Amino acid sequence: MFKVNENYLKLPGSYLFSTIGKKVAAYKEANPDKSIISLGIGDVTQPLAPKIIESLHSAVDEMGKAETFHGYAPDLGYEFLRNAIADGDYKSHGCDIHADEIFVSDGAKCDSGNIQEIFSIDNKIAVCDPVYPVYVDTNVMAGRTGTYDPSTETWSDVIYMPCTAENDFVPDFPKEEPDIIYLCFPNNPTGTTITKAQLQDWVDYANKIGAVIIYDAAYEAYISEDDVAHSIYECEGARTCAIELRSFSKNAGFTGTRLGFTVVPKDLKAGDVTLHSLWARRHGTKYNGAPYIIQRAGEACYSAEGKAQLKEQVAFYMNNAKIIKEGLKDAGYTVFGGVNAPYIWLQTPDKMPSWDFFDFLLKNANVVGTPGSGFGPSGEGYFRLTAFGSHENTLKAIERIKAL
Amino acid sequence: MFKVNENYLKLPGSYLFSTIGKKVAAYKEANPDKSIISLGIGDVTQPLAPKIIESLHSAVDEMGKAETFHGYAPDLGYEFLRNAIADGDYKSHGCDIHADEIFVSDGAKCDSGNIQEIFSIDNKIAVCDPVYPVYVDTNVMAGRTGTYDPSTETWSDVIYMPCTAENDFVPDFPKEEPDIIYLCFPNNPTGTTITKAQLQDWVDYANKIGAVIIYDAAYEAYISEDDVAHSIYECEGARTCAIELRSFSKNAGFTGTRLGFTVVPKDLKAGDVTLHSLWARRHGTKYNGAPYIIQRAGEACYSAEGKAQLKEQVAFYMNNAKIIKEGLKDAGYTVFGGVNAPYIWLQTPDKMPSWDFFDFLLKNANVVGTPGSGFGPSGEGYFRLTAFGSHENTLKAIERIKAL
Repeated sequence: MFKVNENYLKLPGSYLFSTIGKKVAAYKEANPDKSIISLGIGDVTQPLAPKIIESLHSAVDEMGKAETFHGYAPDLGYEFLRNAIADGDYKSHGCDIHADEIFVSDGAKCDSGNIQEIFSIDNKIAVCDPVYPVYVDTNVMAGRTGTYDPSTETWSDVIYMPCTAENDFVPDFPKEEPDIIYLCFPNNPTGTTITKAQLQDWVDYANKIGAVIIYDAAYEAYISEDDVAHSIYECEGARTCAIELRSFSKNAGFTGTRLGFTVVPKDLKAGDVTLHSLWARRHGTKYNGAPYIIQRAGEACYSAEGKAQLKEQVAFYMNNAKIIKEGLKDAGYTVFGGVNAPYIWLQTPDKMPSWDFFDFLLKNANVVGTPGSGFGPSGEGYFRLTAFGSHENTLKAIERIKAL
Repeated sequence: MFKVNENYLKLPGSYLFSTIGKKVAAYKEANPDKSIISLGIGDVTQPLAPKIIESLHSAVDEMGKAETFHGYAPDLGYEFLRNAIADGDYKSHGCDIHADEIFVSDGAKCDSGNIQEIFSIDNKIAVCDPVYPVYVDTNVMAGRTGTYDPSTETWSDVIYMPCTAENDFVPDFPKEEPDIIYLCFPNNPTGTTITKAQLQDWVDYANKIGAVIIYDAAYEAYISEDDVAHSIYECEGARTCAIELRSFSKNAGFTGTRLGFTVVPKDLKAGDVTLHSLWARRHGTKYNGAPYIIQRAGEACYSAEGKAQLKEQVAFYMNNAKIIKEGLKDAGYTVFGGVNAPYIWLQTPDKMPSWDFFDFLLKNANVVGTPGSGFGPSGEGYFRLTAFGSHENTLKAIERIKAL
């Protein structure tokens, strides 16, 4: 008789954004006349840039002719895209990363969930708290996290690194030594970041203790300050301790188009075994490449025209971030983030529990955000709003919140 | 200090098709003047059908306008596609499968690799031998297969079900009881299949012993005989024992476009736990949906126009299959398959080892096929050719083989 993976049954409740989706759907059904504005899930709203659309059409045409048709993609992605990434994201920032260290995928969510597979079940993970739920949940599913304590909402075998207003959202090195450290800067959900010097400290720490940093740089395009690293490979020594995850979702609006990549430097080893060879094996065995037409769309993001159009798009969202941040400040809220990231992290009024504030905002302002506690215990008393709405909706949402 | 997943290190050599790719590349480099014809990897060559191209263009246009832009897709796929699948692939064959039991994905390779995750590590798998390597390799990576014996090229904890000319390529029920049974019909690599009555026997057997059948129906579109089931759900009782994997790669040429789906009926349970809920949790946590434009392309496959165009495409490849099959017969080979599948499975002359025949064919006919032993020990002495080449190349390849 077959048995199921018992680790799945340990997961408390459903995935955060599914829960929010269900709550909103229920409210909508009960209140069909209300117009709800979502600044909740990190989904973009601006259409794909003209240069990307042009490249998609042209790739579609190629797929319609035998001479230019493309079947299975190369395991690790097309060279045209990997070269564009190596030049555009790494060489341009002085990072020593080569095209054959880049693995193209269908997005950073998949990669951030799958990357743990190449590590031993015995490894101990450290995560910032609050944190993007996928890092923890996928380790739960793999059986790496011990037992769950519902009273603290924490796992016995996970090292939590609190990031709150008290420490300026900069995690301290944990007391217990981790094997795998998940870092995401600019951070989701807090919208805050750390300086390049602080990131260098993490790289030095990881190299010292022999840990791997899984560095999620999905929000890199939103960096506006000079002393913030765009890639962890700007830090010395990162090639021997860091894997970097990148996405086209937020810089180019690919949430519904799906493209991302992971960098695994060939210097990253456990004994004789390179993590590069293990990730290549996983790609070759369990994945079949991103669609050709989408990889061409990814390439278009690195053209001069594409870059200019995407810069405008990022500026558009960052203007929303400014509207949210200043509007909330005017309304008396304490707010963080929104300078190097499209997320605004606010303290709930009078330390109201995050889910109560979610319900309060949904009911009284018809605005959907994300409860901080959904990202971990240290997120309690915080709330996330995103800058990915339309200009009009962002203005309207803030007016409604101000009017409360 | 971090440690790697030791199970990855147990995998012997690299993924079959990577090995072939490297061998061919080396031969090409040494013999730049030779024109090589590949009937090896199961990759299609015909361009996407006009109706699909049309729908891709139209979806791309939608992505370029704010009013019709699509961000994150619903976890399980768009309803328009799931409804089209439920009607076109299931209702039309009298199968009781609902749209909400269909999980859209980026292809059957990913699904067939990921599906094992929802099961306990203690479960024992049974596979046909020869077999599509992904089923076994992904279970190796998960630590479910015991130790590898290089002399027999088998794993201690895998139940192998030989499929050879001796048993007409119909697997016998294994002596030891499996928990998970992988079946693929029409079969890759042998190109053979079993009757609906024989499949019903497997469903009855699985229900009797409490096993799950993972049924890979990626080649369903190539079925030409009446007594062959298009879906396992044509069999009575399959809803309580079977998961079905489907692909758009072979019926619609989506190898480079990427789309597939998995059916998990809600009646499939271990105690109170439905496998549907576990697979939904995996999708929600580790996957972010197939691209909107690709899901629209998938929908187009079910339109009247799309269906007619794809029928022609399948007929085109099956004409190649006929050319290969008859040509090889004329040349004195013993051949199987090619009637309900685009694969021809031939016995190597004088029981020549499969990899020797690979080298022989590459060197003397400049034709690339796939060595049977690459699919498992019972594939030794066999060789796979695919019907996915162009008409001209297929003719040329067979002429070359005949001339040997």
